[in-house]
This record gives sequence, C-alpha cells and structure tokens, in this order.
Amino acid sequence: MELYEVIMAGGSGTRFWPLSRINRPKQFINVSGNDILLNETIKRMDGIIKRENVFVVTGERYRDLIEKEIVNGIPFSNILTEPAGRNTAPCILYAASVLQKDKGDGIMCVFAADHHIKNVEEYRRIIQAAAAQAEKENCIMTIGIKPTYPSTGYGYIKSKESITNEIYSVEQFVEKPNLDRAKEYLSDGGYSWNSGVFVFKVSVILDAFKKYLPKMCEQMNKIIDARGYDNESSVLHDIYPNLESISLDYGIMEHADKVQVIAGDYGWSDVGSLNELGTFHSADNNNNILIGEDIVTFDSKNCIVKSDRGLVALVGIEDVIVVESDETVLICQKDRAQDVKSIVEKLKAEGMSEYL
Amino acid sequence: MELYEVIMAGGSGTRFWPLSRINRPKQFINVSGNDILLNETIKRMDGIIKRENVFVVTGERYRDLIEKEIVNGIPFSNILTEPAGRNTAPCILYAASVLQKDKGDGIMCVFAADHHIKNVEEYRRIIQAAAAQAEKENCIMTIGIKPTYPSTGYGYIKSKESITNEIYSVEQFVEKPNLDRAKEYLSDGGYSWNSGVFVFKVSVILDAFKKYLPKMCEQMNKIIDARGYDNESSVLHDIYPNLESISLDYGIMEHADKVQVIAGDYGWSDVGSLNELGTFHSADNNNNILIGEDIVTFDSKNCIVKSDRGLVALVGIEDVIVVESDETVLICQKDRAQDVKSIVEKLKAEGMSEYL
Repeated sequence: MELYEVIMAGGSGTRFWPLSRINRPKQFINVSGNDILLNETIKRMDGIIKRENVFVVTGERYRDLIEKEIVNGIPFSNILTEPAGRNTAPCILYAASVLQKDKGDGIMCVFAADHHIKNVEEYRRIIQAAAAQAEKENCIMTIGIKPTYPSTGYGYIKSKESITNEIYSVEQFVEKPNLDRAKEYLSDGGYSWNSGVFVFKVSVILDAFKKYLPKMCEQMNKIIDARGYDNESSVLHDIYPNLESISLDYGIMEHADKVQVIAGDYGWSDVGSLNELGTFHSADNNNNILIGEDIVTFDSKNCIVKSDRGLVALVGIEDVIVVESDETVLICQKDRAQDVKSIVEKLKAEGMSEYL
Repeated sequence: MELYEVIMAGGSGTRFWPLSRINRPKQFINVSGNDILLNETIKRMDGIIKRENVFVVTGERYRDLIEKEIVNGIPFSNILTEPAGRNTAPCILYAASVLQKDKGDGIMCVFAADHHIKNVEEYRRIIQAAAAQAEKENCIMTIGIKPTYPSTGYGYIKSKESITNEIYSVEQFVEKPNLDRAKEYLSDGGYSWNSGVFVFKVSVILDAFKKYLPKMCEQMNKIIDARGYDNESSVLHDIYPNLESISLDYGIMEHADKVQVIAGDYGWSDVGSLNELGTFHSADNNNNILIGEDIVTFDSKNCIVKSDRGLVALVGIEDVIVVESDETVLICQKDRAQDVKSIVEKLKAEGMSEYL
C-alpha cells in the first residue's frame, strides 16, 4: 500500500525563543547545523516515502515560508493551511480527508515537524514496522519512545499484551506524571513516552473519526466537498475555526479499538528547550558548547552559547545558556530554560512585539 | 595667578571593555548619561579655569576624536599629542614646558580624563584650596581621596605634619597594599588614596624636573625649541618615544621637597571596572540596574545590564554584568569584573582585533 507522510507544522512554541520567533517557529530553525527541522523530518523518510506523498499541515502565516524553504519535490498543493489552529485531531482529520479524496486509501504516517532523531536508520526501521503492522492489522499504530529517565514532561503509553516481539496493544494513554509516578513507570518497563507519531490507514483513521468525532467529520466533509472549487477558501474559513479543538489522543486514541504501540530507541528529542542546543554540538575542555564563530570565554564552564553574529564573551560564568540572535540576547540559567516562555509572555504584555 | 588645566587623556584601559575600545577608550565614553568623561572633566572646572586654558595631552590616534567631540572653547593648539605613551612624567613635563613657552608661569592642575566625581562643588573647593596653597607656598600639591574602604587597588599617600586644617606635608607615597596593610591604613587615618591629581606652579614642577629628571628636561627642551617650526613634528617623533617611561610619582613626587596633600571626600571614582556602571543609575525592585531601552528580566537579581540596541533578556540570572555594545556582548560575573582585561588579551592573541 502506498505510504504517505503528514507533517504537523503549525506549532508556534515559545520555549525555543529567541531562536524561534512568531514568524519563524522552531520547525523552521536549523538546530543541527544541517537543515531546518521541517526539512530534516522530510529527508529522514527519503527512499521510504516519496516526496510527492508528503503533506504538510500548517497555519496560514507560515505558508509562504514553507513554500520558500521546503525541500524540492513537494507539490505546493500538498501544503494544507489551517485558518486557525484547532489542536491535532482536526489537523489529522483534514489531512486524512484530503488524502482520501486526492489519493484514495493508503498508509499515513503522522509526524511533528520539529523533532530531532539521532539514529535515523533505527527510526526508519520502526516506522516501516509500524506501517507494515497498520496495513496488515488495520490497527492504529502509535510510536512510543523507550524512556531513558523519569521524565515529567511527556505523556506515557501503557502497553498491555505483546503482539509481536516489539509491538504491543495499548492499555492506556497516561497524562504527564509527577516525578514519583514517572519513576514507577520507568521501573515498570511497560510504559513508553508518547512522542506524537502515529501510523494508520487513511480508511482506518477516518472510520475512527466517524465513530468518535462524528460532528467533526460532518463539518470536514463540507470542507472536502469544496476542495478544488471557487468557494474552497471561504468554506474552509467558515468551518475550520469552529471545529472542536481537541487532540488526537483525547479525541480518538483513548477510545479506539486496536490501538497498538511500538517503542523506538533512536535518540528522539522534541527539541523542547534551549538546553537541547547542547546535544547537537560537542563541548570544549571546560564543557562549554560554543556554537558560532566569535565566542570567547574566560574561566567559564558548563555553558551553552550560540551567537549568530558579533562577539559573545563570558567571564566567570557557569551553567548559563546564551543565545544571540536577530537583535536579541537571551541569558538564561540552564535549569531555568523552561522559563524562557515567561520572557515571551512579558514581551507580549509590554507590547515589545518586535522581539516576538 | 592664572589657572591652567592639563588633562591626561592618553589612556587605553581595557577594564571597561566592551564599552571602551582601542579607538574609543574610557575617556570618550558617556558613562553617566550626560557627556563623555573627558568633557565632564573639563566642565567640572568651568568658571574656575577658562576653557582656553585647558590643555589635553593624548595619543596621536585620539586627536581626531578629541577635535570632534571635545566641548567648545578649547583651542585645538592646546591638544598636545604624544607620538608614544611614556607614562605620566614625560606627559606632565611636556605640558608644563609648553605652558611655560606659550603662557609663562601659572598654576597647573593635572587631572585624569576618565574619572568621575559625584560632589562637584566639594571637588571645586578642594582644587581651589590646593591651587591657593601651591601659589602661596610654591609647593607640589597632590589631591588625595579619603578612603571609604580598605582598597587594594590604589596607591596611598601617607601624611606627616598638619600645615593647615586640611593640608598636610607628605611623608611617603605607598604602593598598592595587600588587604591587611590596607586595613591598617584605613584605621590609621593618616593615609589617603592617590587619585593622580596634582596642582603646582609651572615653574615649580619644571624646577623639580630639572633636579630629578635632568636628562628628560634636556630632551624636552629640543621638542619645545622646535615648537611652532616646520620641524616640530619630526623632532617630536624623534625624541618623545625615547623619553624615559616613568610615572610622576616615581620620577618626582617621591624625591621632591615640599610635597603636600589635601584629601578630598567628594565621591571620587576612577571608573575602574564595569561594576561602576551601577553607581550612575538606580536599581529596580530586584536590585537590577538596567541601562537601555529594551531589557527584560525574569527572576533575576543584583545584575547590571547595559544595552545600546536590541533586546537583552535575563532568566534566573544573579550577580552578573551584561554589556551589549557595538556587535559585542560581554557577560561577566560581578566579582570578576577585573578579569575583563583577560578577554581583551585573548582577543589580541586570537587576532580578533575587530572587537578590540
């Protein structure tokens, strides 16, 4: 069966500010030094999924940027724009409905646009194994991540019965736990992180939507009926913002039959804070990770410094992240990287929108 | 007797980097928000010393900058350029010799170009008292500063006998002490900081130079003989770089008779490190001193941030100095401000001269 890729690229996460900005969120940032995260997501599946089968769902404000920066070979008609972000369920229903109309049935693999994978070969193997299972069993496959520490930042997937040597039926999707609970999950061994990657037949997921979110399906049908006609845009703008804002996990996964999980161990990262910058570059003798041409340190250690231009100099600084980018310097204690969003909130509140 | 001002403006101190640069050392920086330190030095004596009586001694590389930025009323012929810096004794001899030739005798007040004074009225009173004493007694007056803490960063002047209620004869000039010694000096009460400000008759200091640095006087006479002639510049360049490099303290003060000290208490600062930035501005509720338009902090305290342009944002940062200036960001632990010069050394060593 033909494989399709659906990339959710509508996010406007603030935890990666000031590298990410309103007009250039994280999926459009070159974090690794190779390419922007969106393109790395696409390239990662080259040879397995044809580029003409890659669909990108994003916000209207990012359409021009995507057309400008996306790798070659993706038809611009495969870029679906949401007039308003309504969480993942409408996004995936939109893509699945378009796929059904334009291509017929097939296997769709749903990825986030702004994650990073270290071991791409293992990742490709896992996705292919999930696709084969989804085709054979008509099941909804979720890709879990084998936990490496008791994270309180991710949801978990609890496995039930073994189906193959690495595929399990899913007992439950679990919210982000507290630390004690997270430690239990880790030692239990039957839990994996929910990385938001799904693989299923177009027909299977559409059946699930019909069953669990029938109203959303009715609304979406009107959008799809108008696809290719003069009123396409006006119908989309009328209806899409009124779709229920709900995640695929809540709307479908927690109710659906035949949800299965395959857990990968391929160096996954959701690039969730500026600390992650450190994982893409090697450290110097003082355990400083210096990304950029002109960075000079004196008696400083355990820092991450990224400078796009000009000079950054540190004297006697420890455990600090410094990001110089586009008229902005952020200086953040390493263990406070999650609070970067508070600066973004402040900038909004104080009307300093030029820096957002 | 006519009062003259001689401002030594040849310094290229590195402790104020990145605000100070090779092409714009500290005396040309507007630290207070009012005017550059050189001009504040001149304005401070307005009404006591005529601007046409103000002489500035500086390096050749700063002549254009001075002509461009100096306050009105200073004849450009009063700007004396040293082909090479040779410490303070040659600098003061040069100025005194020019004064004698151009103006005849008078009282010359020697100031550094890059200090700051909080209580200008008291400063003016002290300088006038010193000038009166120098005129009356034909003595060499040094201006001391009443110590406010046991500083190890300044030389000290030890007083001997009381001459008036605030003027003393000098027993000894003392090198920068260690902390124990500095504490003794402070509790003794008979010591003041040597701030490098001197007041004396032109004729008196020239007599002292003839006695203690006769060779330097002979060389200087050749420079002065050529002053106003076609060969002025070539003679200056031939001779000046070969003058002995020695401070006025070592070369004259420690040997001369009739050296007296008057100690002022007028909020003196040599603006010796970036920490001094804090003294010119008031702090916010978190004891952060924020100098510049666009600075945003979150959960940060006791910091000094100066930003010339763009945004500086702090998250979870304490006791740090941040200076953003002209393509450069310095991030320095407050108690390490003296080590900023090490960054300057590194930049030199690594050939990154564009940032010096």
